Amino acid sequence: MQRIAFLLRLKPGTGEDYDKSHAAVWPEMLALLKGAGISEYSIFRRDELLFLYMHIAQDFDTVWDKIEADPVNTRWQQAMSAYFVPVQETRTGERFPFMQEVFHLS
Amino acid sequence: MQRIAFLLRLKPGTGEDYDKSHAAVWPEMLALLKGAGISEYSIFRRDELLFLYMHIAQDFDTVWDKIEADPVNTRWQQAMSAYFVPVQETRTGERFPFMQEVFHLS
Repeated sequence: MQRIAFLLRLKPGTGEDYDKSHAAVWPEMLALLKGAGISEYSIFRRDELLFLYMHIAQDFDTVWDKIEADPVNTRWQQAMSAYFVPVQETRTGERFPFMQEVFHLS
Repeated sequence: MQRIAFLLRLKPGTGEDYDKSHAAVWPEMLALLKGAGISEYSIFRRDELLFLYMHIAQDFDTVWDKIEADPVNTRWQQAMSAYFVPVQETRTGERFPFMQEVFHLS
């Protein structure tokens, strides 16, 4: 098990609608995430900044490739695309703006 | 059990020293955190942005009051004060810039 964290940014003013969507994530999307090896997945928001935290059962690319190959995810991302700024703050070669875990106390 | 998350900002250029300090947190500081009811505590960093995630056994103020009343914490915060910007982005009445959990998948 690995703990993963990354950041995303919303378009200004979309926070509340984003929250509403995430209070009612489609059951088939939840099943896809679970089936791909994700657990203890929380999304935290402050204004336009999102912090995503999750446990993954395999390496991140294996998990995320599985999710992105599924048409349920394609539909979900289309529904969510209204909320996200077009360019996130990734560095060259990064899939998301990952954060490094620098401390852990179990 | 409650999941808590908040943000902190470091002074520019202090990230690597911050990481080193947090790879060697004093055993008495770890014991204080544990004893106050904190578990699954991770700190993630990207550049100067820190994201703190933890599980707490009681309400946040009860847990944090216990920590702040202990001289071990006073010494630890003195040692860490070199890294933090003097004013964090709290709103009126906030102890830290908390993030709201808007989604959770166990």
